[in-house]
Amino acid sequence: MSSIPAQTASAITVPVPLGDRAYDILVGRGLIEAAGARIAALGARAAALVTDEHVGPLYAQALSRSLAANGLRTAVITLPPGEATKSYAGLERVCDAVLEAKIERGDLVVALGGGVIGDLAGFAAAVVRRGVRFVQVPTTLLSQVDSSVGGKTGINSRHGKNLVGAFHQPSLVLADTSLLDTLPAREMRAGYAEVAKYGLIDDARFFAWCEGNWTGIFDGGPERDEAVAQSCRAKAAVVVRDEHETGDRALLNLGHTFGHALERITRYDSTRLVHGEGVAIGLTLAFRFSAALGLCPLSDAERVEAHLKSVGLPTRLSHVPGGCGTVDELLDAMTQDKKVKGGSLTFILARGIGQSFIAPGVEAEKVRAFLTSEIDAT
Amino acid sequence: MSSIPAQTASAITVPVPLGDRAYDILVGRGLIEAAGARIAALGARAAALVTDEHVGPLYAQALSRSLAANGLRTAVITLPPGEATKSYAGLERVCDAVLEAKIERGDLVVALGGGVIGDLAGFAAAVVRRGVRFVQVPTTLLSQVDSSVGGKTGINSRHGKNLVGAFHQPSLVLADTSLLDTLPAREMRAGYAEVAKYGLIDDARFFAWCEGNWTGIFDGGPERDEAVAQSCRAKAAVVVRDEHETGDRALLNLGHTFGHALERITRYDSTRLVHGEGVAIGLTLAFRFSAALGLCPLSDAERVEAHLKSVGLPTRLSHVPGGCGTVDELLDAMTQDKKVKGGSLTFILARGIGQSFIAPGVEAEKVRAFLTSEIDAT
Repeated sequence: MSSIPAQTASAITVPVPLGDRAYDILVGRGLIEAAGARIAALGARAAALVTDEHVGPLYAQALSRSLAANGLRTAVITLPPGEATKSYAGLERVCDAVLEAKIERGDLVVALGGGVIGDLAGFAAAVVRRGVRFVQVPTTLLSQVDSSVGGKTGINSRHGKNLVGAFHQPSLVLADTSLLDTLPAREMRAGYAEVAKYGLIDDARFFAWCEGNWTGIFDGGPERDEAVAQSCRAKAAVVVRDEHETGDRALLNLGHTFGHALERITRYDSTRLVHGEGVAIGLTLAFRFSAALGLCPLSDAERVEAHLKSVGLPTRLSHVPGGCGTVDELLDAMTQDKKVKGGSLTFILARGIGQSFIAPGVEAEKVRAFLTSEIDAT
Repeated sequence: MSSIPAQTASAITVPVPLGDRAYDILVGRGLIEAAGARIAALGARAAALVTDEHVGPLYAQALSRSLAANGLRTAVITLPPGEATKSYAGLERVCDAVLEAKIERGDLVVALGGGVIGDLAGFAAAVVRRGVRFVQVPTTLLSQVDSSVGGKTGINSRHGKNLVGAFHQPSLVLADTSLLDTLPAREMRAGYAEVAKYGLIDDARFFAWCEGNWTGIFDGGPERDEAVAQSCRAKAAVVVRDEHETGDRALLNLGHTFGHALERITRYDSTRLVHGEGVAIGLTLAFRFSAALGLCPLSDAERVEAHLKSVGLPTRLSHVPGGCGTVDELLDAMTQDKKVKGGSLTFILARGIGQSFIAPGVEAEKVRAFLTSEIDAT
């Protein structure tokens, strides 16, 4: 917990200038204790606090007290942890509980948790009474730098992940970086893959800064707040350019075509591979594939891999516990991805660190050849 | 069925100028046979046609053939008829079927049916892949003049009707008025209550026109197309002023505070009361209440009632089959309504025909006194 008194907790403010849907992301230590005043300033009379059985016992009471102390009638809705909660049944449960809590159009849903809670609570907020406002209080590094920013909400369908949802921007994001002090090291590393990704997309200077400062991020120094804030700035800039993902926003998928395929092949079994680990391997492969296509110096791919390795992330197909499947299985898993159109594959490739671009129509045969050489190399 | 060849079916076009969500409502006889070309012009490659077991057997084949003939891959999704379909389970079923049909971001959901199908399919379209386009092909008078216009979509929760949903504007509305030739007389009358409502809200001239031309509307003369088109124009004008119902759009609820209470009291049992019948009684009561409050000439209230009676609609509490409950039950049912804020009631009242206004903060005691006198009078 932060040693800064709650009332004076300082924060870095990252504005997300989306017109009448503009909001601020606040990044800093100890924000949760002071959250009530900041959330109450949004002008609601009541809040439904959605959390899960892991996070709730740690922080829900402090947050709901802070809300109550600032005049907000508060109900706490606690869900089972894990991806299975992001379901139609989970949506029904949250919506009905939010209605039960008599949340009106001017009131709020507050998501306290990681990506599952943020995506589900945000979707419920998007559809209860055809839309109430919501606040994200992300409690993992991954959700602080990725899912809590940008307004993508949703649940999974039997046809795939995140296939049912809404674009619904939060009214405020409070990223309390002191919550990460108790985050398991593996989850911290996995979230870090997304931090590094922002540098790799279009900010070589930030990637270099990460190489030099990553221990401070993991140790909870001021570098952590700066890294979270910079990640949010980077994501916000992309989202502002392309809120509904009709173009540029796809750059955020750097490393994700390979990553999602590996998650699918490991059947989303988090004991084998979590999302950020898939992304770490995917980032390395995206650069190695770019190098194999002659687009990018191999030295850049090696630098990407070296850095991800140094923080303890997996980087190669051979690092997938239980194996990564055959080339055919990998290709199959890739072509099931949302980013595939008309049979050809869309990749995010790079001309170097910080120089990524959207490459539609990559021939499957080139992907096959690359994957074959990667598997043979192990 | 229309005698006009499908290819040349003429239509009245009602534009809904909502910026980048602008669309046209086409009103005319025989539109369904020519629907494929008009829907294909929206530029999709595939369409999921959502209908119910009543409407599907009558029109789904003709419509899906017309779509296929215009190059659209089409899947038909048929649901049980009735309000119970507008549920979380119904949403899951439609979303998964739309995904199963491989509907992508650029493709379409087409709603073929009354309000239940339009609301449910529209909501599914709003959330599948975080939003695909949809087309309304309303098959009842009520849905042609009300629910298919304006972008309100949703399902019911155990806490109330339409409490979960989205604002999602259609890309096109095709109101084929020849479909009403086979509509049961009771449903036709019920839909007509909403037509008359538009005159009562702010268009005394249209109400007078209705008084003189209603038989043509029921008989399927050119008056029907004009009445549907004028209703759509009226609703569109309100929606354009206040798309998300933060103000003026509440005028569309004229007659609905009383009407919804009666639907609730009759437990949404359509053998006793359907929505439009509740609205007819509600319109009469809204004018009689306005007269009782000294806001509106009693002669205007009498004129409203006389016209609704002449088309065969119920107009008084005593006309509710099985009874309307006690004054306390009616008040309870009213205060459960979404339009109640902070304990006081919001009504749409009138200073005369075509002169309605939003009246927030109507004292419950005045409502009680009015309802008591209405029940005593029976």
